[in-house]
Amino acid sequence: MALIVQKFGGSSVADAESIKRVAKRIVETRRTGNEVVVVVSAMGDTTDELMDLAADCTPIPAPRELDMLLTAGERISMALLAMTIKGMGVEALSFTGSQAGMITTPDHGSAKIVDVTPGRVREALDEGAVAIVAGFQGFSRDSRDITTLGRGGSDTTAVALAAALNADRCEIYTDVDGVFTTDPRVAPLAKKIDAISSEEMLELAASGAKVLHLRAVEYARRHGVELHVRSSFSGEPGTVVYTPKTGHPKGDLVEDSVITGVAAEASEAKITVGGVPDIPGKAAQIFEVVAKTDANIDIIVQNISAADTNRTDISFTVPMGEGRKVTEALEAARESLGYETLLYDDQIAKIAVVGAGMRTSSGVSAQLFRALYEAGINIEMISTSEIRISVVTRADLMEKAVRVLHTAFGLDADETATVYAGTGR
Amino acid sequence: MALIVQKFGGSSVADAESIKRVAKRIVETRRTGNEVVVVVSAMGDTTDELMDLAADCTPIPAPRELDMLLTAGERISMALLAMTIKGMGVEALSFTGSQAGMITTPDHGSAKIVDVTPGRVREALDEGAVAIVAGFQGFSRDSRDITTLGRGGSDTTAVALAAALNADRCEIYTDVDGVFTTDPRVAPLAKKIDAISSEEMLELAASGAKVLHLRAVEYARRHGVELHVRSSFSGEPGTVVYTPKTGHPKGDLVEDSVITGVAAEASEAKITVGGVPDIPGKAAQIFEVVAKTDANIDIIVQNISAADTNRTDISFTVPMGEGRKVTEALEAARESLGYETLLYDDQIAKIAVVGAGMRTSSGVSAQLFRALYEAGINIEMISTSEIRISVVTRADLMEKAVRVLHTAFGLDADETATVYAGTGR
Repeated sequence: MALIVQKFGGSSVADAESIKRVAKRIVETRRTGNEVVVVVSAMGDTTDELMDLAADCTPIPAPRELDMLLTAGERISMALLAMTIKGMGVEALSFTGSQAGMITTPDHGSAKIVDVTPGRVREALDEGAVAIVAGFQGFSRDSRDITTLGRGGSDTTAVALAAALNADRCEIYTDVDGVFTTDPRVAPLAKKIDAISSEEMLELAASGAKVLHLRAVEYARRHGVELHVRSSFSGEPGTVVYTPKTGHPKGDLVEDSVITGVAAEASEAKITVGGVPDIPGKAAQIFEVVAKTDANIDIIVQNISAADTNRTDISFTVPMGEGRKVTEALEAARESLGYETLLYDDQIAKIAVVGAGMRTSSGVSAQLFRALYEAGINIEMISTSEIRISVVTRADLMEKAVRVLHTAFGLDADETATVYAGTGR
Repeated sequence: MALIVQKFGGSSVADAESIKRVAKRIVETRRTGNEVVVVVSAMGDTTDELMDLAADCTPIPAPRELDMLLTAGERISMALLAMTIKGMGVEALSFTGSQAGMITTPDHGSAKIVDVTPGRVREALDEGAVAIVAGFQGFSRDSRDITTLGRGGSDTTAVALAAALNADRCEIYTDVDGVFTTDPRVAPLAKKIDAISSEEMLELAASGAKVLHLRAVEYARRHGVELHVRSSFSGEPGTVVYTPKTGHPKGDLVEDSVITGVAAEASEAKITVGGVPDIPGKAAQIFEVVAKTDANIDIIVQNISAADTNRTDISFTVPMGEGRKVTEALEAARESLGYETLLYDDQIAKIAVVGAGMRTSSGVSAQLFRALYEAGINIEMISTSEIRISVVTRADLMEKAVRVLHTAFGLDADETATVYAGTGR
């Protein structure tokens, strides 16, 4: 008997029909002798509708009350799912985040899990019931208030419960068949990946792959939870995201692929601080100013100083939404920093190729540069990790670059991938 | 500084505009120096919509999950109301039934309050905040589950909190200006009552007056909570429902009116067991059979036995919804009971005149009989309490009977009452 955690996103429980379909799948899993814990998001657009209602009531909703409001969404979906399963003759009990022991920090809207005490979930399983748990939400012992986990919250709830219950696996149901070598909507020849290491998945998620949230993958990796990304529409086995603890599903002898996938995103902006005096400590000074804004800096490039001026340019990328506060902070510190120009450019895209095999394989960067060069795509910035190479290009060339690299690294499938509607979040 | 509990029904918080209007009223009450606890129902038709969703998912929803589902309704309205008040510059915190300490029996859908421990509500007040509490819901210590209180639940929550917090008064906001001498939609000359004793209110509520739920009035009477029934649309003072403990708002010397109000309802059915052997214990035997069905019997009439047959007829009324189970039970016991005929009649109406002054005033029944007789309305059954006379007539004569009695007992106003849309529940 295995213990399986299954997570269903909002599009999987968008209406009564979808809820019945999901309930049927859960009942099947239970009837084949498994213990089942289900984590569910709010139905379809419920969260957006509740946000709109809040906006109609007051311009800046108090975070505590917004969390109270939004948690009604999963309360509805989990109760409906539990009663539907019970109606199919299988015992089921729903639990709020608080009842399921999701203990968090008191930070409304972006709480972090500090402890998971799923005593009631364990009891429900011991009584033979399926436990349905509200995703995205928790409870702070400090403030005694209801909290929400923020983006990717439901995936994280599922992984955290799987870890705390020592589950055999955590299945994340979405609207695609699994993790693909790249977004099939951009590159129709994208292939489903059967197995991927959690560190590769982390790099892909951090580079724009939307199927799994970075935070959930990190949690799974740290706690050795084996993730299965599967479609709630098909019966396909999906993608296994394995960790150092669980190991590759086909055994230890499987060799890492050189390149596992290509990810891209166009949601960052490039800020260039020009004519910076090339003296020790100047870069540190600039990034101290940026750090105070709490912006998430990604790629940083410093040009070689021109010999005649002793000045240099420093460029870095930040999420577009944070561009304004960063430029304002730099503008305010212009005098003390002593730079000459400040440029903001949000017409950029970041493309990353990821593969654990890079560690033992040389020539990957050369292959990447050549492929982009031959396609006439100019590289503006470069950043690398042990298993990833990221480049920044013009935004309008992003999709072309993805297709070019997908082909260049031999990832193309023989046939076009099926793409379902929806987003699976 | 007074402590005021204000309860707003679903129609008072049906949309963002209504929520803002209610928030404004709460803010005004707070700013005049009062401590304010607000009890709120689910927005408009939310509860019905959730019930429909449940019905779409499964034919007979599990009661535990149905309670979990329905409690999302007040969670939404209370969070929206709290953030709206905060947006107006007044501190506000929302609390679920569980957080507000509404401890109930574990009976899903019809839980009874067993304890009220509003520690967090008291703390919120001490910090200067308005406390917004979800009506209708509670928490069972035994099952550790969320419960709902059933019909009239939000009124009862408000009264129970007012009692536990020793509030100065409990204001029930609705869509009419207060308690009327009868339903203004039936008798346009109905008058708003300024003050009514809780025992009179109890009789009116039990006889079909919809403005306050019986259960809430009982709780208020038992715990000495002064209720104010007011319109959430106008600024009028409304009706004070006083208790023996609080006394008449105008002092002890105010004389009770002979007749305070007229109530009516057409939701009961008359069951007549005909040709019952007139021997001791036969009636008891019949009502034992009925009692086993848990039906709520109201009026009972036993005809005088006809001398030639030594048989008699026994009639009683039950809510229409319970008619079937009662007739089935009687049918099944036909042989042992030895009666001859069983008649079911749901074309009846019950009209009640209520007034504490009846105790000291004679001739009220005679006046009632004469008025109905002169209007050509036949009386089929009669029942009386110390402060009430109820009669059963044909259903299609109900409204006429109400108007006739309203006029006969001098309750008519000089001008027509204003009737608002909605139901205020």
